Amino acid sequence: MPQIDFFDSIRRELSFSDEEENMMKTLVKPQSRVLGKNEFFLQAGKYCTSVAFITSGTLLYFRENDNADKQVYDVLFEGAWATYIHGLVTRTPSDMNIQALEETHIIEIQQESLEILFEQFPKAERLSRRLTEASFIQIAQRAADLQFLSAEERYAKMMRDEPRLFERVPQYYLASLLGIAPQSLSRIRKDFGRI
Amino acid sequence: MPQIDFFDSIRRELSFSDEEENMMKTLVKPQSRVLGKNEFFLQAGKYCTSVAFITSGTLLYFRENDNADKQVYDVLFEGAWATYIHGLVTRTPSDMNIQALEETHIIEIQQESLEILFEQFPKAERLSRRLTEASFIQIAQRAADLQFLSAEERYAKMMRDEPRLFERVPQYYLASLLGIAPQSLSRIRKDFGRI
Repeated sequence: MPQIDFFDSIRRELSFSDEEENMMKTLVKPQSRVLGKNEFFLQAGKYCTSVAFITSGTLLYFRENDNADKQVYDVLFEGAWATYIHGLVTRTPSDMNIQALEETHIIEIQQESLEILFEQFPKAERLSRRLTEASFIQIAQRAADLQFLSAEERYAKMMRDEPRLFERVPQYYLASLLGIAPQSLSRIRKDFGRI
Repeated sequence: MPQIDFFDSIRRELSFSDEEENMMKTLVKPQSRVLGKNEFFLQAGKYCTSVAFITSGTLLYFRENDNADKQVYDVLFEGAWATYIHGLVTRTPSDMNIQALEETHIIEIQQESLEILFEQFPKAERLSRRLTEASFIQIAQRAADLQFLSAEERYAKMMRDEPRLFERVPQYYLASLLGIAPQSLSRIRKDFGRI
């Protein structure tokens, strides 16, 4: 299973001295956690009170609609930061589920530790701002693709940009993530297979 | 024309003392600017090097596709912050246009002034992080709507949440913003008129 180192990943965003890194570790108390297959990182109705860096595994963001169908909003793999920003910011019960699709190893940091960190070590707030900016750029691109690309074009882009999705996520979740019916995905896959 | 005060808006996000507010003003040198109708705040091919708070007016975010059709990504009114985050972060020429649809009054802050501000006054970085988080939540909702709502549902939501769009933005831009053809918007409007 592919693994990504937490501090390697942070160093790529912003440079910290060894001393600063140790200070951060002391302040935020990062906790290693293993989520079993199908275990929830966040369940609808509960509060989101932490952020998690995925060192290995897969997290599925979904809501259930009135027919108990899962609507898939995102899928994150090793190297990504997972949290529900809306829940963190509004401090209201979550309307989103975040579930492990396979055994998933995370490094979890509590929101209250982050706030202490930001107070005492403002440079960490820059890291947080940059990560949020990067997430913004990604989700803005996703909205633009849904707005202006056809389902076929979105599928081709997904194949090109995120092949892990096809290896590690069931078809019906991918259809939902593309915003199309499962039958449409089957048809598109067949058409692509023929080319 | 409705007007929004810049510092009132900032105070709603985060509380600052008068002294802090004066320090911020000195460091960031906010510039009042008036964009004439059709004037660009940002043009594709140019660099985005500033952020702007809109005190009155309307800004249109668009790209031109290969057929020179305008694809509309966003429309911002008084009270919103306008910038092209992708351009600011990557420091590459913009592939986005931001144009005034009517006379638009902005308070502009240069990126380099912001960086000095963040270095000397870390609390301002918190404001920036919060504004980015708020933008993230908004665009994530937009992506979700495009993914899971029908064109009719998106139209109804737009009417409910942002009536200013229907008063101040031409039909063909609204169709593009909804991700539908202008004829589809005409049909939906007719259907809604009948109810």
